[in-house]
Amino acid sequence: MPDILVRGCLLARCLAQRTEFVPDQSLLIRGQRIAQVGPSSEVHPTPGAEVLEASGLLAMPGLVNTHAHVPMVLFRGLAEDVDLETWFNQYMWPLEANLEPEDVYWGMQLGLAEMIEAGVTAVADHYFHMDLAARAVEQAGTRAALGWAVFGSQGQAGVEQTSRFAQEFRGAASGRITTWLAPHAPYTCDEGFLRAVAAASERLGLGVHIHAAETRAQTEASLRACGATPIQVLERTGLLARPALVAHACGATPEDLALLARRGAGVAHAPKTYLKLSMGAAPVVAMRRAGVPVGLASDGAVSNNTLDLWESLRLLALVQKHATGRPQELNLAEALWIATRESARVYGLPEDLGRLEPGALADLILVDLSGAHHQPLHSPAASLVYAARASDVRTVLVDGKVLMRDRRLLTLDRDEIVARVRHGMTRLARRVPASRIQLYDPAAGRGPADPRA
Amino acid sequence: MPDILVRGCLLARCLAQRTEFVPDQSLLIRGQRIAQVGPSSEVHPTPGAEVLEASGLLAMPGLVNTHAHVPMVLFRGLAEDVDLETWFNQYMWPLEANLEPEDVYWGMQLGLAEMIEAGVTAVADHYFHMDLAARAVEQAGTRAALGWAVFGSQGQAGVEQTSRFAQEFRGAASGRITTWLAPHAPYTCDEGFLRAVAAASERLGLGVHIHAAETRAQTEASLRACGATPIQVLERTGLLARPALVAHACGATPEDLALLARRGAGVAHAPKTYLKLSMGAAPVVAMRRAGVPVGLASDGAVSNNTLDLWESLRLLALVQKHATGRPQELNLAEALWIATRESARVYGLPEDLGRLEPGALADLILVDLSGAHHQPLHSPAASLVYAARASDVRTVLVDGKVLMRDRRLLTLDRDEIVARVRHGMTRLARRVPASRIQLYDPAAGRGPADPRA
Repeated sequence: MPDILVRGCLLARCLAQRTEFVPDQSLLIRGQRIAQVGPSSEVHPTPGAEVLEASGLLAMPGLVNTHAHVPMVLFRGLAEDVDLETWFNQYMWPLEANLEPEDVYWGMQLGLAEMIEAGVTAVADHYFHMDLAARAVEQAGTRAALGWAVFGSQGQAGVEQTSRFAQEFRGAASGRITTWLAPHAPYTCDEGFLRAVAAASERLGLGVHIHAAETRAQTEASLRACGATPIQVLERTGLLARPALVAHACGATPEDLALLARRGAGVAHAPKTYLKLSMGAAPVVAMRRAGVPVGLASDGAVSNNTLDLWESLRLLALVQKHATGRPQELNLAEALWIATRESARVYGLPEDLGRLEPGALADLILVDLSGAHHQPLHSPAASLVYAARASDVRTVLVDGKVLMRDRRLLTLDRDEIVARVRHGMTRLARRVPASRIQLYDPAAGRGPADPRA
Repeated sequence: MPDILVRGCLLARCLAQRTEFVPDQSLLIRGQRIAQVGPSSEVHPTPGAEVLEASGLLAMPGLVNTHAHVPMVLFRGLAEDVDLETWFNQYMWPLEANLEPEDVYWGMQLGLAEMIEAGVTAVADHYFHMDLAARAVEQAGTRAALGWAVFGSQGQAGVEQTSRFAQEFRGAASGRITTWLAPHAPYTCDEGFLRAVAAASERLGLGVHIHAAETRAQTEASLRACGATPIQVLERTGLLARPALVAHACGATPEDLALLARRGAGVAHAPKTYLKLSMGAAPVVAMRRAGVPVGLASDGAVSNNTLDLWESLRLLALVQKHATGRPQELNLAEALWIATRESARVYGLPEDLGRLEPGALADLILVDLSGAHHQPLHSPAASLVYAARASDVRTVLVDGKVLMRDRRLLTLDRDEIVARVRHGMTRLARRVPASRIQLYDPAAGRGPADPRA
């Protein structure tokens, strides 16, 4: 494979306390990785290298989605203006009873197309039929950390399902796919089940991706039911001794945050979903002060409507300013650091992703800030956090390969994907609450029985 | 001028309690207005009519921005991560001391270009050098309700300035321009000044556009300083007896809302700015229950970063769900009603704008919902509120004329505008706090002296 030279861009260097924007830089990409970065006058194309002219474009690391259920794009727009319990019991879990494995394949492709078009190059996905999701990732050329979601009601078969998938697909798609075990949540998995998952994850040398403390109400229900917060349940079942990716944690207590920090667990943050379902603002400022890394996330499109991380980035900063009452919080540099290095860490590839430096994986995007909504460009950082749109992303590379060029998708056939997905719309939208795949009732404590059983 | 036929669209009919989406509709436009709407099989082009093929596109009323300071796009990105007082005293008002009249002309054009590209067809703008802003509106072809901003420190000369402009430019640009008197706010205008404005507005038969109760802290400061809330000050100075457009009112009390409702005043709502500056969530649900109409707004780009009303629409719904703790609030239909009819009412043209029906002004946009981020399109309403981006707007008509076609601007020269604006960047970004045009100090009560005096 010939090298690629990205020539003449404005390079965004996202650091923990500041963001640097360096004009007229070039990047030489060899294989999957960045080989050289520097002034365009010093970085030259190797013989046969493909040259991507990036003059007038900003280069930054591809965005990393640290928690999603990508195939849920299939149900986009079907569960609006409802509370969390209704959302689960009357919409989400009944709708998911309609899923055929084939749906996951096409839904995953649709969501990956949407994410590539938005500059999202990696996703930690938590869903069902993940062998088919993996096939879609292979096709799309993106990076993914996949986990097969299981419930406590499935018992030992569930532990085996999520373990088997994780073992079989780790390193798939030339290493672009990594895997996690993916128990659903403490409120749908009993402690015995969680212990079994922790044991499996230790045996396999893999981490665990799980929902926990999604709301303060869940934390309170858990305390009533078993005398421990959901995060404490993760600890006492051994899950926090494993590399852990905790989705949401809006209802985490200060003690929970200290525990997560001590264990090195990361939190995935999906602020649009929290607002829409009135889940409360996640204490991101407190999380980060406690030492818990936070990653941007979209969650599924049935709550979030899009998989657009520019929205998550903007809301991350806006909601923290609102919730703390201090507009100095979550400043531009911190927001961009979370969007890049900290998301990479939560995703599980802290050194490989989120930075455009020699040795890092070549997952990067070229963003056009010439639109009227960015002008005059006094502050590229402010533009990225508060004005950029998914449609400003022009070109996307993952693992050293171009997946979108000048907004044209190169690996996925959007027309075919949309046609396939539309074909199943009526069947997918059928909603029979009695046929739900689970029951949401955190007040009942540990893992209700599977209503299908 | 030949008629225009918009053929074969999906028509959005936004009603107070529901939104209807009617497939394969056509609209016949004659002069400035919509002449006919119906099934494509029944609405035919008149001889010589220009036909806009809209198959696969959704037609809806152009978005109405009920409060902005459009030329402030010139300072976009220059005041980040600061609190409201610092924002005013260290950034905004010192920066505005750099303004030359010519800047307003080009800044207005830049903002209008951004808004046309986002499907925003009308703006209630509150700024300085509004004769030049009016000239930009004339060029752009959009609709605007303009007010020349004045402070109490200007005394009678200020009252005359805002009155003279409003009188001279009402009905300009073939009627596309309407005018308001535009005193800045109760905290920068003493009561004598506000009374004089009220008297002038009665004499001229014009309404008043003013900031008030921007935060709860302003309300409390006003109560301490003069025993009345900012809204009560508007009442006792006679301004609420006039048609009134009140910007923000985040700090309005329940009694204030009842007063606004009784007086028929409208409120402009700019949620992105409120989050960013930690101003508190405006009580929109309570406002509307009290009978106060609410319109979407962007405020200026120095707080809001963009003039994109899709962001305002989304945040309107998301923040109300969050603030009330009830995700059923601000449902899809209500959000779209606010974005169309209610914004039209707040803007001052309740029957002419915000509806695609015979007799209404032909201000409409064609939106492309075929993107991956909208698919599968189970719910066009959910897509408009939660997934649509400015870049989905394909074509824009105002007053029966096409201003953007397939995303190409037809009335403004974006390259020239950007070049002109960039030319002044260094001068505009100079910041000398001592040269500020005003001092923000609501605790000091009524209108501090002009620091330039």
